[in-house]
Amino acid sequence: MRTVDFRSDTVTLPTPAMREAMYKAEVGDDVYREDPSIRALEELAADITGKEAGLFMPSGTMGNQVAILTHTKKGDEVICEAEAHVYYYEVGGLVTLAGVQPRTIAAPRGILTAAAIAPAIRADDIHQPPTTLICLENTHNRAGGTCYSLPILQDIHELAKQRKIAIHMDGARLFNAATAQKTTARDIAQYADSIQFCVSKGLCAPVGSLLVGRRDFIDRARRYRKMLGGGMRQAGVLAAAGIVALTQMIDRLAEDHGNAAYLAEAIANCGFGIDLTTVETNIVIFDVSPLTLHIEQFVRDLNARGVKANQFGAAKVRMVTHQGISRDDVDYAISVLAELAK
Amino acid sequence: MRTVDFRSDTVTLPTPAMREAMYKAEVGDDVYREDPSIRALEELAADITGKEAGLFMPSGTMGNQVAILTHTKKGDEVICEAEAHVYYYEVGGLVTLAGVQPRTIAAPRGILTAAAIAPAIRADDIHQPPTTLICLENTHNRAGGTCYSLPILQDIHELAKQRKIAIHMDGARLFNAATAQKTTARDIAQYADSIQFCVSKGLCAPVGSLLVGRRDFIDRARRYRKMLGGGMRQAGVLAAAGIVALTQMIDRLAEDHGNAAYLAEAIANCGFGIDLTTVETNIVIFDVSPLTLHIEQFVRDLNARGVKANQFGAAKVRMVTHQGISRDDVDYAISVLAELAK
Amino acid sequence: MRTVDFRSDTVTLPTPAMREAMYKAEVGDDVYREDPSIRALEELAADITGKEAGLFMPSGTMGNQVAILTHTKKGDEVICEAEAHVYYYEVGGLVTLAGVQPRTIAAPRGILTAAAIAPAIRADDIHQPPTTLICLENTHNRAGGTCYSLPILQDIHELAKQRKIAIHMDGARLFNAATAQKTTARDIAQYADSIQFCVSKGLCAPVGSLLVGRRDFIDRARRYRKMLGGGMRQAGVLAAAGIVALTQMIDRLAEDHGNAAYLAEAIANCGFGIDLTTVETNIVIFDVSPLTLHIEQFVRDLNARGVKANQFGAAKVRMVTHQGISRDDVDYAISVLAELAK
Amino acid sequence: MRTVDFRSDTVTLPTPAMREAMYKAEVGDDVYREDPSIRALEELAADITGKEAGLFMPSGTMGNQVAILTHTKKGDEVICEAEAHVYYYEVGGLVTLAGVQPRTIAAPRGILTAAAIAPAIRADDIHQPPTTLICLENTHNRAGGTCYSLPILQDIHELAKQRKIAIHMDGARLFNAATAQKTTARDIAQYADSIQFCVSKGLCAPVGSLLVGRRDFIDRARRYRKMLGGGMRQAGVLAAAGIVALTQMIDRLAEDHGNAAYLAEAIANCGFGIDLTTVETNIVIFDVSPLTLHIEQFVRDLNARGVKANQFGAAKVRMVTHQGISRDDVDYAISVLAELAK
Repeated sequence: MRTVDFRSDTVTLPTPAMREAMYKAEVGDDVYREDPSIRALEELAADITGKEAGLFMPSGTMGNQVAILTHTKKGDEVICEAEAHVYYYEVGGLVTLAGVQPRTIAAPRGILTAAAIAPAIRADDIHQPPTTLICLENTHNRAGGTCYSLPILQDIHELAKQRKIAIHMDGARLFNAATAQKTTARDIAQYADSIQFCVSKGLCAPVGSLLVGRRDFIDRARRYRKMLGGGMRQAGVLAAAGIVALTQMIDRLAEDHGNAAYLAEAIANCGFGIDLTTVETNIVIFDVSPLTLHIEQFVRDLNARGVKANQFGAAKVRMVTHQGISRDDVDYAISVLAELAK
Repeated sequence: MRTVDFRSDTVTLPTPAMREAMYKAEVGDDVYREDPSIRALEELAADITGKEAGLFMPSGTMGNQVAILTHTKKGDEVICEAEAHVYYYEVGGLVTLAGVQPRTIAAPRGILTAAAIAPAIRADDIHQPPTTLICLENTHNRAGGTCYSLPILQDIHELAKQRKIAIHMDGARLFNAATAQKTTARDIAQYADSIQFCVSKGLCAPVGSLLVGRRDFIDRARRYRKMLGGGMRQAGVLAAAGIVALTQMIDRLAEDHGNAAYLAEAIANCGFGIDLTTVETNIVIFDVSPLTLHIEQFVRDLNARGVKANQFGAAKVRMVTHQGISRDDVDYAISVLAELAK
Repeated sequence: MRTVDFRSDTVTLPTPAMREAMYKAEVGDDVYREDPSIRALEELAADITGKEAGLFMPSGTMGNQVAILTHTKKGDEVICEAEAHVYYYEVGGLVTLAGVQPRTIAAPRGILTAAAIAPAIRADDIHQPPTTLICLENTHNRAGGTCYSLPILQDIHELAKQRKIAIHMDGARLFNAATAQKTTARDIAQYADSIQFCVSKGLCAPVGSLLVGRRDFIDRARRYRKMLGGGMRQAGVLAAAGIVALTQMIDRLAEDHGNAAYLAEAIANCGFGIDLTTVETNIVIFDVSPLTLHIEQFVRDLNARGVKANQFGAAKVRMVTHQGISRDDVDYAISVLAELAK
Repeated sequence: MRTVDFRSDTVTLPTPAMREAMYKAEVGDDVYREDPSIRALEELAADITGKEAGLFMPSGTMGNQVAILTHTKKGDEVICEAEAHVYYYEVGGLVTLAGVQPRTIAAPRGILTAAAIAPAIRADDIHQPPTTLICLENTHNRAGGTCYSLPILQDIHELAKQRKIAIHMDGARLFNAATAQKTTARDIAQYADSIQFCVSKGLCAPVGSLLVGRRDFIDRARRYRKMLGGGMRQAGVLAAAGIVALTQMIDRLAEDHGNAAYLAEAIANCGFGIDLTTVETNIVIFDVSPLTLHIEQFVRDLNARGVKANQFGAAKVRMVTHQGISRDDVDYAISVLAELAK
């Protein structure tokens, strides 16, 4: 049976060029900062985002958590969207590890604005924790891969500067955002003090994320990475694949976005509930309730026909396009969806 | 000039009977559990709420924080209303001290329901912290002293039991809630695993709150109280006043509620914005924007005329009735409000 | 039966002057900083130690923990003696609350020196937490009430200044130290950035400790006190007794020291093991093993004869003199000890 | 110039067989538990230590920290040797991440015994944190690669069982210990509830450690690994090298030990201070003070002659043998040391 895996772009496999690069990678002890491949990737990451320095991480979660640890003091308050990955999917790490209180704001399409953030900034009051960080997720995973526009980022950046609050961007899918907004990672990054982005997911490297920011920030982050256990030794074997990801794979994201839009439109035509305006990148979330389908059964039926997808909440399904999925695969999935929708 | 202090019921002063009781209080070293006044108050507190045991606390904040520490493990998630005192006004303590992640739900009138809570309970998923505690604030301070009805509590209790989640009630003003709902502290308390209530505030004792619950819970809570620095020595001098509070002062809360309702109606008549349905107890919150008054100036004008009140957010004022405020004082305040409203 | 309680000086009862002062105390809401008795005590505490400001605490433990929270950032390392109260008896609070790692040094007589501290200060290394605080306990409880001499303090202070490390002194029994060293609290306090001292214990107030230091330090400490639940309302009833403690009770500590020395010598004469050089203040620790007595039985026998004392480790007993113990009481205890020693 | 790197066995490079294995590794998304190479390595790790399950970690530090997080509750106390890696070199992680208080015991040769541990276990006392975990480091890095004998482990295990305390072994160099003690990893592992060991270091894999223990323990550990950011995606590329490490590289450790012993003897002959009884595995620590050499200059001189080594404390040098160092390299280093010793 044909199987197409729409569960997540995290299932992407390293390309032959990546395999080759890993095989030949020059490596050293990165805790001593002697791994040339890691250093090259960190410099490339800084350059591509216009920041001073970069730091290799075993995962996006560690990139986010180290950033929060580095930006804050115990007992600070951190503003984020109500379903932001740092709050929703990182096992409460920002609390357990950094000791900061999340101040969550539910935002349409998962996109915070300066107007939504301003009233949540705490007063200088003995009863209240100080607000010291804003986390923005771009693209926003649970909202369906939605993106921040540059003007919205600029406004938030302005507000944050006025109130002396730092901005960290969870850009696990930063290049999807740049692609969709027809801008560059560097143009987006100018509005954040630190950014984390993944070389896995749509970019297909097997493992790894980069945290970028000012040099002194990265120097302090290095110690927190060590504390969390992210100080790896000859990690250049991974970095070599990451360099391929950043130099060869970014352009292909547009194809994933095209496939997602194509899939989304077909889903709408089948009668499922879907907000097409949220399908800006490679994530498609739709609701089975308009067709009065039983969600668990529906997901089982999809899987039984080789279309792997994840249930998402009480009545929705999430499908993600990526390098392992061709237009033909999408057509196959559409045929299965259409069949089940009847 | 006449001065009436509506800022908070925390400004109440000990009564002569309390002074007398403190003067004569039999005391001992409560860390050794040898203070007879403390023990008597703790037993009284347990009895009045139908719980097995009680523990004296220097403040309601400590009562809440110790409860959270005792109910949870590091990394758990705790559900509370979006402006609950434990989240909004306790300096991020639940994060810094207990290491738990708050999951906040904005609820009309500050009153959570089983229907609102159910979808926020986490799935058993490696990405997510486990939900282990629900905190309910009764009366809800920032919502204007609103109360939980018994049926709503019963539903939440049912849900919590099913999902094996504990319930802590922040009942800093528990007896105001019981008075307003024409029920007893004990009837309310049956739906919570632990409750904190204050003998200060409307009950006028100078210092102190009680945490009540099962005996094994209180035994473990005692260690956390010690950790936070709440193990006091001859604290019976305070407990003596607390006993007076619980035996002589509860009945008088109805008077504060009457005064608040009377004040609220007059405020509505003056043209201020006010939701009279929230004025169930002794807190009155109203909006000056319908009269296009400048909030800072308005509060200054009130104070200049001896009516002390706190600004509350960007356009509101909070006034609280208590034992230090007579009906005549309220009439005076109304005359000042009417004058400023013109 | 005659009963004399040597378990701890924490069992002291408020004096009649304190009862009177509490009865008449002028009070207000101290969270609003409107309690005149609290303010007077805080100013007195600052003055007596030569510091800029003071802050009232419900316990010495809270004074220490708030000081540590205020001096440090999460992940810092704090140097203290291996059996220091902040490490040994505060339920691991410095870890759970402040998130700092204790670096313990076992020191003869519990008294750290600059020479002992210097090698424990961490290098600037990515694997290691930064050392930012030294805690000194004066008098040292578990070492038997031993004191820091001024020259030793001066050396530590010099080292700390060079290495940019703060010093907090746990002076729960600061006035015992000053009395024994024939100096003043102010002369001792000059070598610490912050000090906590109790008005309970030998000074007989029912409840309370003061944290003193620079004004900006105390301002920040106030928020942490709120977080831990130490923000009390009309706490002036306690402060009134504290003022009596500081103005009338310090001189009487010499009597406790005289009684302790007298008791210790008799204990030595009975053949118990005791290091008389540690008996500098009001604590007497001795070893029953030279007399081959069974420790649990020995303590039971003491108690059965009305001499209340605590077992201390595997073979020792701790006895503490205080205001409730006269020379005649000590003679009675000696007669019991002599009888049991036979 | 000839260069030999004795700084650490962490500088070892992946072997050709490892490069090959990584190139061909079958991989999948390990967060979904679909990476066959990871699963194979985890099963191998469990089997080799006689435990139920294993979990791949990006570093030994993460393996230790996740183990501590999983074994303990906030506020517990954890016993370890005074210079144990988990306490000395993990940036205070056990405090910041797990919120536990370290109870450190200085032990000869870094080897704890039941007799040393027993008195440090806390009493059930409201002032004290509960002792719930003992961490043993085997081999002990800072003590010079010393090993636990099986009888000592058995005694500690017996004590821990009686007192219901868990044992975690930091076996970063577990196979060095097994080799030196002429036993197996499995025989050692029977005395610990969980063990972490590295496939990097002497075993030459580029990245990775394994945490092993009971299945339910590993299931809970998986969530904490996710929290710390150790959930990697197609990590099988690393696991493939780890499998080579465990199947092909263990036998070669004896050679490193032989080289270390040979080097140590020569060092002793040169007149440096060295305790030959601590040289049980692949670490050699020696003291330059008997030769009145200036330590910083001495290390610079070594490096200038191509012998890379780390200063260790105020007067010592640490040299570590590993796969990149032949007997001929050791002879070269000895000639340099002899020259400098004159």
